[in-house]
Amino acid sequence: MSDEARIKSTRVYTGRVISLDVDQVRFPDGTTGELEIIRHPGASAVVPFVSDLRGADPQVLLLKQYRYATGGTLYEIPAGRLEPGELPEACARRELLEETGCTAESIVPLTSMFTTPGFTDERIHLFLATGLTRGEARREADEFMEIETVALSVALQMVERGEIQDAKTALGLLFAAGFRVGV
Amino acid sequence: MSDEARIKSTRVYTGRVISLDVDQVRFPDGTTGELEIIRHPGASAVVPFVSDLRGADPQVLLLKQYRYATGGTLYEIPAGRLEPGELPEACARRELLEETGCTAESIVPLTSMFTTPGFTDERIHLFLATGLTRGEARREADEFMEIETVALSVALQMVERGEIQDAKTALGLLFAAGFRVGV
Repeated sequence: MSDEARIKSTRVYTGRVISLDVDQVRFPDGTTGELEIIRHPGASAVVPFVSDLRGADPQVLLLKQYRYATGGTLYEIPAGRLEPGELPEACARRELLEETGCTAESIVPLTSMFTTPGFTDERIHLFLATGLTRGEARREADEFMEIETVALSVALQMVERGEIQDAKTALGLLFAAGFRVGV
Repeated sequence: MSDEARIKSTRVYTGRVISLDVDQVRFPDGTTGELEIIRHPGASAVVPFVSDLRGADPQVLLLKQYRYATGGTLYEIPAGRLEPGELPEACARRELLEETGCTAESIVPLTSMFTTPGFTDERIHLFLATGLTRGEARREADEFMEIETVALSVALQMVERGEIQDAKTALGLLFAAGFRVGV
């Protein structure tokens, strides 16, 4: 549908992480207009459990990560961009290893989401990892983070209280917990 | 913290919706590097209930919205950018009115989240609206959407099944439903 609607695409900026296009677009009613689009390769994120999921209140790894864009640190789950040709699950395994040093016996998909569809095509694939073996993290030069181990019930309270402010992390934790709703 | 870390900011593009800066940044370890940042004014989104929240399985309004960036339609809650100087609650009320034609007796904050903090400062404020009075929608020229009324339990199933693929909408519905988790 996107391709049919595109009249012309002008690359305004090609960056290391993102690129910016200004597209001339035909809307569903036949009118035309210009839209700014951040092209993003997509990403994976993974909720890593360090204890048995069947046990009472399993433990999850959270990263306390420095984010320049938001002016401080955020609690996040391990995540990162897809490399060219990389499958979402492989990306989730790679980011888990790079950011926490862990390898996972099992990785299962939870869901996928568009992060902010008004101006970007970025889609993030969320996974749940269990059976972790710890090793050495291999972070990129501009990644600054500390690992914290918290009980899932505590992590969910942090979501509820707004202490976890990263959308993918909140969604990942809620999905991993198998949300039940009181309706 | 962001201001202290910024060595230099270069505006690469000023758009209608977003702007792109390339900032030279000092990281927490004292090293420096360049980061691409999409500057965004922030946004509000609102989960609109058309029936009494205390009743069994209340009804919620969803928009089936055309999104060029994602190549099709997405189910979303009413949302939009903050205007200069506008408070998040006022923005939520304005977007609710513009996109659905509804005014709300009560709007209460649910949470706020960073949509994708790796490359943008966009923060979205989520609200819950009740006591709706229906009127005429006043959409912008490039907004194409249909309103659907669904039971909250159905909307939550749509989240679980991946039929709702917009992160703010999934989070808003889960918060509005007062998520309970089986841990």
